[in-house]
Amino acid sequence: MTERSYRPSGEDSLIARYFRPLATDPGAFDLGDDAALLHATGDDVVVTTDAIVEGVHFLPDDPPDGVARKALRVNLSDLAAKGAMPAGFVLTLALRGSDAAWLEPFASALGDDAARFGCPLLGGDTVATPGPLMVSITAIGRVAAGRMVHRSGASPGDRVVVTGTIGDAALGLDILKGGPVAAALANDAGAAAMLMERYRIPQPRNALAAAIRDHAAAAMDVSDGLAGDLAKLCAASGVSAAIDISSIPLSAPASALLARGAFGIETLIAGGDDYEILCAVPENRYAAFAKAAQAAQVSVTTLGSIVAGTTVPRFFDAQGAEIVLRRASYSHF
Amino acid sequence: MTERSYRPSGEDSLIARYFRPLATDPGAFDLGDDAALLHATGDDVVVTTDAIVEGVHFLPDDPPDGVARKALRVNLSDLAAKGAMPAGFVLTLALRGSDAAWLEPFASALGDDAARFGCPLLGGDTVATPGPLMVSITAIGRVAAGRMVHRSGASPGDRVVVTGTIGDAALGLDILKGGPVAAALANDAGAAAMLMERYRIPQPRNALAAAIRDHAAAAMDVSDGLAGDLAKLCAASGVSAAIDISSIPLSAPASALLARGAFGIETLIAGGDDYEILCAVPENRYAAFAKAAQAAQVSVTTLGSIVAGTTVPRFFDAQGAEIVLRRASYSHF
Repeated sequence: MTERSYRPSGEDSLIARYFRPLATDPGAFDLGDDAALLHATGDDVVVTTDAIVEGVHFLPDDPPDGVARKALRVNLSDLAAKGAMPAGFVLTLALRGSDAAWLEPFASALGDDAARFGCPLLGGDTVATPGPLMVSITAIGRVAAGRMVHRSGASPGDRVVVTGTIGDAALGLDILKGGPVAAALANDAGAAAMLMERYRIPQPRNALAAAIRDHAAAAMDVSDGLAGDLAKLCAASGVSAAIDISSIPLSAPASALLARGAFGIETLIAGGDDYEILCAVPENRYAAFAKAAQAAQVSVTTLGSIVAGTTVPRFFDAQGAEIVLRRASYSHF
Repeated sequence: MTERSYRPSGEDSLIARYFRPLATDPGAFDLGDDAALLHATGDDVVVTTDAIVEGVHFLPDDPPDGVARKALRVNLSDLAAKGAMPAGFVLTLALRGSDAAWLEPFASALGDDAARFGCPLLGGDTVATPGPLMVSITAIGRVAAGRMVHRSGASPGDRVVVTGTIGDAALGLDILKGGPVAAALANDAGAAAMLMERYRIPQPRNALAAAIRDHAAAAMDVSDGLAGDLAKLCAASGVSAAIDISSIPLSAPASALLARGAFGIETLIAGGDDYEILCAVPENRYAAFAKAAQAAQVSVTTLGSIVAGTTVPRFFDAQGAEIVLRRASYSHF
């Protein structure tokens, strides 16, 4: 009798070596089954998916740990905006080969973020491609039954609120591409590094998910530019908005560059990759929302109000004059 | 006041035009939100993901309708093997551009299969890529709490059972590549067409899901070759198996070609893309299982038995002599 043990394939070995350690949830079955299991808890299940492609959403020489974090965090950001708690994610990885120098830091950072955000790897598929690297993640969350927060739901009178600061990632991308912002910050390496980091590593606002669920009438994450995403939220809700441009929260470097005239406000509010949360909060919920945000250590800023109508949101300067934007949003096609 | 309506981006238009009609489930919100919603039903949720890449898993000139069907069906096959009913799927599509001649039949066939298998589109992401087309699908199913069927769970004495016929897809791929099977079938266009179809359009056994859930001790779908996949099921269950090679169900063309010596049995049982279900059925459940399979109009065949031990499954010919396989399975790396 020939004594032969089961020998895993190259694909199985790659998964075992790099990704099995991330599959900490019992429903992942150590990645050894055809599917993962989420036990019924009485909560609704929320599902979102986002993919990033080398050369399109990240740069070929971006550090692999940052690629991993961005791929997971853009999905975590969607869960947060819906008021959902992360339950886990599945990963599809298209690779040109099995390159340990790339996979090791990628998997390590992915595991680190999975633990940090309580979102374990549930399953996945690794496929060979002759083309660019691609990371596709489907994240799954749970929210109390009937409590998911939608893009629709905003009403006239609601405050328009955003987390964090807007436009940093767009400036960071410009720097990485050697654009005009890079030149403007040639003597300020610290500011440039901060902005590039904002592009590379989003800070999803999952700490705010419960506050969104409890107080927001509508919410979405800002991924394609504040102006365009606000237009989407308003369109879904059948309303418009009036925004005070001077109230848009900017980081110190973005604010200084804007004051110097390095670019117009449009660069900041039509750029992408903010991964902040934009929401409509009814006036009578705002105090409780702001308090919960403070407890979660997430800054929130009121930009203006939801108003009746179906036109795109209107932006006004400090003098009350309307600013007409040429482009509102980023599109890949 | 400037009357401007919200203008969707190119990506939004592409999604609206081709994919919104597939989002028939109310939890998909017409693809107009950041996430989809599966209402709590008390069932467990089963999640599986599989991606296919142009030039690797399908051929660049494969008809787009077949690509769509295969991408969804390989995932449906996993749900069936776990005893789960489809609830919906999310789609990530990496495209070089927005080519209506490809997208229209792709989306149309995907919608057709989504309706046929009761698995609506819940959400997705379309991304631009300079590389090969890629279709990544995460399918979500529901199964009564605690009833998902695992790869582990097979015990000595269980029957090893497979659905349908084995090896046709491997022969179909050989024909599509102009290999020796193409030459052997030069005068039998009907058989060649049948085998190519088996490669291009899997027939997932979702009709058998309830029978698997109710009667199988362990199950998986056969995607990487019967021999290798049986080895995986046995390894997960901590058992081995003894298989009668002459009992492996073959289609008429596969059987005739094997009899003519066009290839060895290994070509059939180590090839991939069968998308049949392999399961271990306890002897005292088999009659009920076979009856349910008949009612579902899915043929099932007993190949041998689960046996104690941890060696790879052993294959025997009609005379009881062991056949040692050189390769058991297909791997992309």
